Amino acid sequence: MSNITDNTRKYLLTASDIEALEGQEITHFLNPNAIRLNKSLGDAVGMSQMGVHMIAVEPDRDSTEFHKHQYEEECIYILEGSGELTIEQDTYTVTKGDFIGFPANEVAHSLFNNSNETLVCLVMGQRLKHDIGDYPNQNKRIYRHNGKAEVVEYENIAYPKTHAGRKESDEK
Amino acid sequence: MSNITDNTRKYLLTASDIEALEGQEITHFLNPNAIRLNKSLGDAVGMSQMGVHMIAVEPDRDSTEFHKHQYEEECIYILEGSGELTIEQDTYTVTKGDFIGFPANEVAHSLFNNSNETLVCLVMGQRLKHDIGDYPNQNKRIYRHNGKAEVVEYENIAYPKTHAGRKESDEK
Amino acid sequence: MSNITDNTRKYLLTASDIEALEGQEITHFLNPNAIRLNKSLGDAVGMSQMGVHMIAVEPDRDSTEFHKHQYEEECIYILEGSGELTIEQDTYTVTKGDFIGFPANEVAHSLFNNSNETLVCLVMGQRLKHDIGDYPNQNKRIYRHNGKAEVVEYENIAYPKTHAGRKESDEK
Amino acid sequence: MSNITDNTRKYLLTASDIEALEGQEITHFLNPNAIRLNKSLGDAVGMSQMGVHMIAVEPDRDSTEFHKHQYEEECIYILEGSGELTIEQDTYTVTKGDFIGFPANEVAHSLFNNSNETLVCLVMGQRLKHDIGDYPNQNKRIYRHNGKAEVVEYENIAYPKTHAGRKESDEK
Repeated sequence: MSNITDNTRKYLLTASDIEALEGQEITHFLNPNAIRLNKSLGDAVGMSQMGVHMIAVEPDRDSTEFHKHQYEEECIYILEGSGELTIEQDTYTVTKGDFIGFPANEVAHSLFNNSNETLVCLVMGQRLKHDIGDYPNQNKRIYRHNGKAEVVEYENIAYPKTHAGRKESDEK
Repeated sequence: MSNITDNTRKYLLTASDIEALEGQEITHFLNPNAIRLNKSLGDAVGMSQMGVHMIAVEPDRDSTEFHKHQYEEECIYILEGSGELTIEQDTYTVTKGDFIGFPANEVAHSLFNNSNETLVCLVMGQRLKHDIGDYPNQNKRIYRHNGKAEVVEYENIAYPKTHAGRKESDEK
Repeated sequence: MSNITDNTRKYLLTASDIEALEGQEITHFLNPNAIRLNKSLGDAVGMSQMGVHMIAVEPDRDSTEFHKHQYEEECIYILEGSGELTIEQDTYTVTKGDFIGFPANEVAHSLFNNSNETLVCLVMGQRLKHDIGDYPNQNKRIYRHNGKAEVVEYENIAYPKTHAGRKESDEK
Repeated sequence: MSNITDNTRKYLLTASDIEALEGQEITHFLNPNAIRLNKSLGDAVGMSQMGVHMIAVEPDRDSTEFHKHQYEEECIYILEGSGELTIEQDTYTVTKGDFIGFPANEVAHSLFNNSNETLVCLVMGQRLKHDIGDYPNQNKRIYRHNGKAEVVEYENIAYPKTHAGRKESDEK
């Protein structure tokens, strides 16, 4: 190793740097059992356009609320431990070395630590300016745009027929 | 004029081509008095990324419902006649040769034909994949994305604090 | 007219406001005969995402260099005078009330004032973060991104086969 | 594991699925020593908006040509083995469990397997519609857009002053 400078060293997080990173305990705003310790590796090196997180989920916790992104892609690589993955109505056991990826707007999913060890994963996802998320078990939709989050119950969403022939959003 | 070919003639709409274009009568889905005859010049030449419309609004009609776009820009150039423009709480008389432009997410506006002649305008606007519109007099918000339109009453929108430290939409 | 305030009056340019606007004389960097007086109506009201310009082209001048945008759409509405429009190999006379619109990446075009009066047009176009333009008569391509402009001769562009199976730009 | 269906099983690649995936041997078009075995985990599950690859680099091989992305972010997580990472003028030894991330347009980098074991990494990156890459050691720039790749020598790029006051790319 040579020439370590502050300028370029900041792009590298060694395994021990990651170990030493203080994580953030995050509870999902819609699921009090979804508690994870989150280390944002991407943010730590100055990335802003993708999210790259190392998350630790303790036994009997969910990683998140069952959800689907309409626009953003998201994926998970299991680093340690095992868990129960739910995709729509199906469940799978996932363990170290498994990869799970979600194209946008296809299937809702969640991950539960049903083991007695900590489950550690890399979670990567797009950070689009606009996304819409669905929480099917809560009958809620979240509109995210430019850092704002707006949550609506499905039953309160109307789907007007704005007018025939309209292209995209230019009904002024 | 020389060498007219089907290949390139289609990008040109002469004044008489425009006169001959069949317009579409459009009533705004939230305002039964907002009725206009709409000729989409942009669509007619194959444009898809911007809306460019020649609209005719008869006396005592609104051009649209009072609204604001959170993401798209929109502007109007008055070709014939005159009308009453409302921008937020203010009203202005607009007439032939006037231009009105709206940066995104600044002010709500509407245009009413308070004259006894047809008001004719060019209306141009962005066609973003995602936009959000506000109808302040109706207490409604419209989420437009990929050709879909979802309308929600303001009182049914929750603004959760998702979690501190979150960047954009990567709360998985 | 009532309640004129500085806050909302700025979105309106009356015909006399436009008349009084100081234009900018612009010569195209690749065509010394392409000289126009340019009043950016959009910029004047604070728009930034679309360009909306009123341009005046004197007799025997071109409005621009013959060109095509690969990503941005552009259109023209003739307000006064007449001119000779070239689209690829074809020429047309255009006059007051005519509209010409260009979907992205279809045809190159230019506009020449072959009359003895000033030609006045509205020119509207997208302002994408990334665009690529072609100047076929100059054998040049312009890469525009984030306010930067980079011009390359066609003969200096290589088109490597990067590798089979690659999706988009993720060859790291 | 229960209820395995074709519908949802396809989003999961177990460690043994990944082992069984046929990789693609890729040689960088500008560096004959940059040879890797590439398994695109993201593509395998139907993702298209991000690239997620497991790459294997044999001893004495580079993973890629020294480069920087002007618009896309990219990051690497080391799964097995070790290597020599170059960031601009600096070199670092990286090994299992290390993470390296590159915000757009900051530093050029490359990774060389200077060990005698296979180096295995996860490489993740954005797949933007438009990107520009620099190969500083080759004095070359690559313009990628919509699946196309155009490569130009630095010395053949002109930087014209198009005109003062221009906003973005609307010089028509």
